[in-house]
Amino acid sequence: MFLPSRLPLIQAPMAGAQGPALAAAVCRAGGLGSLPAALLTPALLREHVAAVRAATDAPFNVNFFCHVQPRRDEAVQARWAQALSPYAAEAGLGGTPAPRGPARTPFDAALCEVLEETRPAVVSFHFGLPPDDLLERVQRTGALVLSSATTVAEARWLQARGVDAIIAQGAEAGGHRGLFLSPDVGAQPGLFALLPQVVDAVHLPVVAAGAIADGRGIAAAFALGASAVQVGTAYLLTPEATTSDVHRAALRKATDDGTRLTNLFTGRPARSLVNRAIREMGPFSEWAPPFPLAAEAVAPLRAAFEKLGRGDFSSLWAGEAAALLREEAAEPLTRWLWEEARRVVDGLKL
Amino acid sequence: MFLPSRLPLIQAPMAGAQGPALAAAVCRAGGLGSLPAALLTPALLREHVAAVRAATDAPFNVNFFCHVQPRRDEAVQARWAQALSPYAAEAGLGGTPAPRGPARTPFDAALCEVLEETRPAVVSFHFGLPPDDLLERVQRTGALVLSSATTVAEARWLQARGVDAIIAQGAEAGGHRGLFLSPDVGAQPGLFALLPQVVDAVHLPVVAAGAIADGRGIAAAFALGASAVQVGTAYLLTPEATTSDVHRAALRKATDDGTRLTNLFTGRPARSLVNRAIREMGPFSEWAPPFPLAAEAVAPLRAAFEKLGRGDFSSLWAGEAAALLREEAAEPLTRWLWEEARRVVDGLKL
Repeated sequence: MFLPSRLPLIQAPMAGAQGPALAAAVCRAGGLGSLPAALLTPALLREHVAAVRAATDAPFNVNFFCHVQPRRDEAVQARWAQALSPYAAEAGLGGTPAPRGPARTPFDAALCEVLEETRPAVVSFHFGLPPDDLLERVQRTGALVLSSATTVAEARWLQARGVDAIIAQGAEAGGHRGLFLSPDVGAQPGLFALLPQVVDAVHLPVVAAGAIADGRGIAAAFALGASAVQVGTAYLLTPEATTSDVHRAALRKATDDGTRLTNLFTGRPARSLVNRAIREMGPFSEWAPPFPLAAEAVAPLRAAFEKLGRGDFSSLWAGEAAALLREEAAEPLTRWLWEEARRVVDGLKL
Repeated sequence: MFLPSRLPLIQAPMAGAQGPALAAAVCRAGGLGSLPAALLTPALLREHVAAVRAATDAPFNVNFFCHVQPRRDEAVQARWAQALSPYAAEAGLGGTPAPRGPARTPFDAALCEVLEETRPAVVSFHFGLPPDDLLERVQRTGALVLSSATTVAEARWLQARGVDAIIAQGAEAGGHRGLFLSPDVGAQPGLFALLPQVVDAVHLPVVAAGAIADGRGIAAAFALGASAVQVGTAYLLTPEATTSDVHRAALRKATDDGTRLTNLFTGRPARSLVNRAIREMGPFSEWAPPFPLAAEAVAPLRAAFEKLGRGDFSSLWAGEAAALLREEAAEPLTRWLWEEARRVVDGLKL
C-alpha cells in the first residue's frame, strides 16, 4: 500500500467544516485523516498539526490550495456587491462595509516552513501544484505528495511534475472542483468514466474521489482500478466535524438531484446543496469575481442569514451521494465504511 | 436473473447507429440485443424484428421514445434556421428548403400493434412512459417493461407506474438523457451517485447505464447494487453497428473530457463528442426548437458536411468512456466484456 495509513482510505480535507478533531479520529480508526490548511495562517496550521499529534501517533495529510491569487479589481468587487445588494438590504446590511472572513490563501513559503518544521507524512494539493521551488521543498521533507485531477490531461500533467499519487476527482464530488487546466465544467467526467481512464493513463497509484459514501462505493472504486479512496461528504455529519448547523440541516434533507456546481460562493466551480442563492441567481454568475474574491461580498450575507437560522448564502458543500450519509462518530464510521466495503467485495458474484 | 437473456447485459438501443445486425450479434453472445424503434415506421419495425428473428432464437428488446410531440411553430423553426444560416450558406444550402430526415416519433397505437403481433420479450422506453392505455397494451403482450431514470424521483415515478425494472442512466451516458420530470441537466447525478440511491429507493431490479465500456465498469456497477448493465457506446465501433464514418472517426480520437451535453442536434439534452457546432455555437442554444424539431434544420447541414467527410453538424453520440472502446465484432466483444468483468470480480481484494 502506497499510503502510510493502515487503510487505503483518505478522509477528504474540507476547509471550513473540519479541523484536527476529525482528522485525528479518522487516523485512530486506521484511515488517513486530513487537515485542510486553505483557511489557516502558518500559526494556526502549527496549532492544528500539534492538536492532531496530541491525539494520535498515526500519519496524516495536510492539504493546501495552490491557486494563483488574482489581482483585486475594485470595480469587479463593486459590481458583485451590487448584484448581491437586494439580499444585503433584506438582511439589513445595506451600506455597511463587508466584514471579511478568513481568506483562502494559496500555499506559500511561510506555510511551506511549517511543513519543513512539522513534517507530516502526506501533503495534498488542490488546483494543480505550487511553483517548482516550493514543490521541491515539500518533496525534500519526505512527504508523499498528492494532487487532484479532474481529467486525464490533468493527471498526466501532475505525473510529469513528480507527484506520488493522483486523486481522480469525479464530477460528483462535493466542494471545489480541483480543475486547473481548463475552466470548462461541461468537460468534467463522472467518476465512473474518469477513474479507469486515469488509471490507464498514468503509472501512479490513483485515489478515487466523488460520491463515495458507503461500502458499495469503495468496492466499486477498487473494481474500477483505484488504489485508495477519498471520502469527504460522508464525514460532514460526524460530531468531530465543525459543519455549521444550517449545513447539517441541509445535509439531512439531501437528495441525489439536490446539488449543483456553482461559482457563487467563492468564484470557482464547487458543488453545493441548492439553496436560495443558487435557486434565485442561478448556479453560475458572470459577475462573481475570480476565486477566492467572490467570497468577500458573500461572507456578511452568509453570516446574516445564518444568524436567522437560514443557509440562504452558505456554501453547503456536498457531493451527489449526500443522501447516503449516516450520523455516526468518525471512528466507528471509518470502521463501518471499510467493513461494508469488504462485505460487498466478498459478496460480489457474476 | 430478471432478464430473459443468458447474461445480465443489455446492448443499449442506439437509434440511427444500429439495427437488427448488432442486436442479433449481441443476442448470439448471450446478451440482450436491442432494436431502437425511435426512427422507424411500423412497417420498418416489423422488418427489423423479422431480421433479428431470422438471425437468432434468443429474446431481445425493442426500444421506443415516448416524448410528447410538440406543436410545430413555424416562427421558432425559422429562427433556428436563421441561427444556422451562416453554416447553411457555407455548405451551399442557402435558400433551398430543408430535406427532412426520418423523424423521431413517439410510441403510438400503430407501433403498439407491431408489439402485439410480434411479442418481443422485452420493451424499453426512454423519456418516461407512454400513456396508460398504451402501456397496459404493452404489458398485456407479456413483455418485460423497462424505462430509464436519471434521478431517484424518476425511478420512483416509474416504479409507481408498474415497470418491471429501472435503467439508472448516469450523467456519463451517451446520447439522449432520459430525463422526463425536470429539464435541469445540472441536477443529473453521475452513475456512482445515482445507482446506489436508486437501488435503495425502489424494490425493482436496477440496470446501470453510463460509461460502462469494459469489465471494470461492469464489476463496479454490480458492486454499487446493479442487477444488470446496459452498454451502448462500446458497441459503436463494431462492424455490425451502422455508425457513420465521421462518427467512427471521431470515436477513434475520443478523450475523457471530449463530450458535452448539448441540445443542438435534436432540441433535447444528449451527450455528443464535441464538434464544430458545439464548439462554435456552445452546447446549448436557446433558439433550438423543442425535441425533436431542432433536428429538421440540422439534417441538411449534417448531410452536406458529411459529404465533405466532416462531422461538423453530426450528432456524434458518445458516453464519457468512449476512449476505452475496442474495435471488435459484437459477439466476441460481448463475450470479452463479460469475461473481463468476471476476472475483475475474481481479482478484487480489500
